[in-house]
Amino acid sequence: MTDSTAATTFNPGKGAGEPVGIALLGYGTVGSEVLRLMRKYADELEHRIGGPLELRGVAVSDVSKPRKGVPEGLLTDDARSLIDRDDVDVVVEVIGGIDYPRELVLKALRSGKSVVTANKALVAAHADELAEAADEAQVDLYFEAAVAAAIPVVGVLRRSLAGDQINRISGIVNGTTNFILDGMDSTGASYEDMLAEATRLGYAEADPTADVEGHDAASKAAILASLGFHTRVKFDDVYCEGISRITADDIAAAQEAGQVIKLLAICERIVEPDGTESVAARVHPTLVDRAHPLASVSQSYNAIFVEAEAAGNLMFYGNGAGGAPTASAVLGDIVGASRNKVHGGRAPGENTYANLPIATFGEVPTRFHIDMRVQDRAGVLADLTAICARNKISLRTVRQEEGHDGARLILVTHTAREEDLERTVQELSASPAVLGINSVLRLAD
Amino acid sequence: MTDSTAATTFNPGKGAGEPVGIALLGYGTVGSEVLRLMRKYADELEHRIGGPLELRGVAVSDVSKPRKGVPEGLLTDDARSLIDRDDVDVVVEVIGGIDYPRELVLKALRSGKSVVTANKALVAAHADELAEAADEAQVDLYFEAAVAAAIPVVGVLRRSLAGDQINRISGIVNGTTNFILDGMDSTGASYEDMLAEATRLGYAEADPTADVEGHDAASKAAILASLGFHTRVKFDDVYCEGISRITADDIAAAQEAGQVIKLLAICERIVEPDGTESVAARVHPTLVDRAHPLASVSQSYNAIFVEAEAAGNLMFYGNGAGGAPTASAVLGDIVGASRNKVHGGRAPGENTYANLPIATFGEVPTRFHIDMRVQDRAGVLADLTAICARNKISLRTVRQEEGHDGARLILVTHTAREEDLERTVQELSASPAVLGINSVLRLAD
Repeated sequence: MTDSTAATTFNPGKGAGEPVGIALLGYGTVGSEVLRLMRKYADELEHRIGGPLELRGVAVSDVSKPRKGVPEGLLTDDARSLIDRDDVDVVVEVIGGIDYPRELVLKALRSGKSVVTANKALVAAHADELAEAADEAQVDLYFEAAVAAAIPVVGVLRRSLAGDQINRISGIVNGTTNFILDGMDSTGASYEDMLAEATRLGYAEADPTADVEGHDAASKAAILASLGFHTRVKFDDVYCEGISRITADDIAAAQEAGQVIKLLAICERIVEPDGTESVAARVHPTLVDRAHPLASVSQSYNAIFVEAEAAGNLMFYGNGAGGAPTASAVLGDIVGASRNKVHGGRAPGENTYANLPIATFGEVPTRFHIDMRVQDRAGVLADLTAICARNKISLRTVRQEEGHDGARLILVTHTAREEDLERTVQELSASPAVLGINSVLRLAD
Repeated sequence: MTDSTAATTFNPGKGAGEPVGIALLGYGTVGSEVLRLMRKYADELEHRIGGPLELRGVAVSDVSKPRKGVPEGLLTDDARSLIDRDDVDVVVEVIGGIDYPRELVLKALRSGKSVVTANKALVAAHADELAEAADEAQVDLYFEAAVAAAIPVVGVLRRSLAGDQINRISGIVNGTTNFILDGMDSTGASYEDMLAEATRLGYAEADPTADVEGHDAASKAAILASLGFHTRVKFDDVYCEGISRITADDIAAAQEAGQVIKLLAICERIVEPDGTESVAARVHPTLVDRAHPLASVSQSYNAIFVEAEAAGNLMFYGNGAGGAPTASAVLGDIVGASRNKVHGGRAPGENTYANLPIATFGEVPTRFHIDMRVQDRAGVLADLTAICARNKISLRTVRQEEGHDGARLILVTHTAREEDLERTVQELSASPAVLGINSVLRLAD
């Protein structure tokens, strides 16, 4: 054996076999499932980590409520003191919300504890601050569960694709809206009926705004774009349009065209002809060709489609929500953070070295599907396509058919810029030849 | 900030900013693509690693051949001396074969170099010896590219699902056979015609045995089972049946039944009623329901379907072969191994602590689809179903239809054991009521 440099770089932290102390912040659906699995698979996890996990405490806001599964004496309403304990190595945040978990996570990181969080809103809003604290203390910040639960896209972007260039990430990352759109597509039901059904089945919350208006998906888009492009993209940088205005007619029109409407989170690298690059992240209803792998993602499933320079197209599919799938992702992160505590080393963290500019939404190139009712007379088509041409919108297909109330005209554009489209739609609306705009939808590439 | 234990466990190895020396063994399709990408993304990779990658040499068997892209003076036919160099930190093996790369990889590991290999045959045959060498020297052994190229299933099993229990992994892990079967399904072509087409297009090698007889898929099954069940499963432990006997009639019969034939690698945890566990890995043509996500994997694409206790069902889909996708996986591994050289720490390696027994193929439970020509007379059905019952095979569906040459009888069983099926088929064949067995195919669960 020749002289080994590697052996000297390997520095066990706590030392193999020593316990890793866990503080669990929050004990809702996810927290209780994390604890159940931690107990059920204790022996397995010890083998995988190199030392046993030991629960130091569970912090909740109200200790008087019964908390099934929490061992006697471990429940506390003092999260700060729990985090401060010397025998806590990894802090698991599954509270939800932003301000209070932000304070606790920062406190934990600054105290040299690694953190595992499932909190997409927190990460999407404050990743820079959190990453900085983790870097300063040289600890880990894991958040696999923040995007699409057990679908391991965070780990894949951080590690597996670390040798490649990501060009685009398109994902169905919200189960509620996919359940609604898939139901509308397969049964012809209205948006309102499917929303009621989703609420009845527990897929939608009492206030469904965060899901149906795309805010939840936008948080995930911010996280995916940051990881994929090594550039800080925050929630506020994401253009966001929900599904509440999608009608049964839109769905039917998509079907006629061999397409399906999905709420996509699209993160992309935009390369100008001169080679300058920027990134954009957006969430909006999108027409997806039925042959595309994302089109067949049904019910409340999630899927993320990644286009990389060398790897080509990859898709990751599974349950994007729910107690057990989320807990699976949290536990995978706990194993990772705990292994590092035992064996030394740090997971690749946030790394926003590329720091690419974020394109304004008006600059984003996409293709559009414009569905209108128009006057049924000679010259209309010439008038309307002239409006498009004047606004630099070139057309890919034009379909005109007779309707009971004027003619119906469907224009599908070549790739165009959002701001050019917006102007075009305004001018079309204002044209006397147009009786009404049925819908303007974007197409997936 | 409170006292931090974590900060003391973090031990930079070479120190941030120091170069990581790379030795590349092999310069075929994959090796040249790895080098091209290493050069193209040099700046990006340096940011992700924390230090620059520096190529120390490229070892090939014949240095007189022109090797485009290899810098002057870096080509050598002395792989052993290249590995021995003190300034080589990570050895990348993309030679192929087993014996020679085994010697080189062992030498590298024992010299304290981390190793990245794309060699499925090597890993499937010698993982125990390689893992032991890596553990002894406390270095990394990465092999993401050995299974399904850039589909990051190795990393996902090692890390993302480290907090979960894997129950089953079913994968389309060979592009050549999927191209052939998909072509037979979509065009009605014969096996021979599609094999010729695959050869013409470069999807099949001149000697297609390793692909069409399932050996390539069996290597991957061994690797996936080992990772998923923390139990050493070797190539020789995998039951293997290829696609060369699949006929256009089999494909047509599957279509009639709403199914499609795929060559699946199936790795499963078998739990007996008394709780004892074993594992099995097998590769064979399998009837897959058209609604199953694996059914729609077309052309030469690969996909791996993972069933985990908490995560539920996950699927990973993409290009499972080719120079660029394989190089993407190799480079992801190079980044991982290099990060650890710079920052300290080790990736989770082989960990076969569970050491579950490997079920003999006869014990494996599955469902069968038996397609026969039988005499067209009263009493035949009673005779044949009695044979099944006697052999503990219970039937799920029975379909009899008139044919031009006797009747056709299709039996689909409930879950049964392979050895019971084998006996049943022998007795059915021997029965005078059976004119011929058209096919016996296994069904996916």
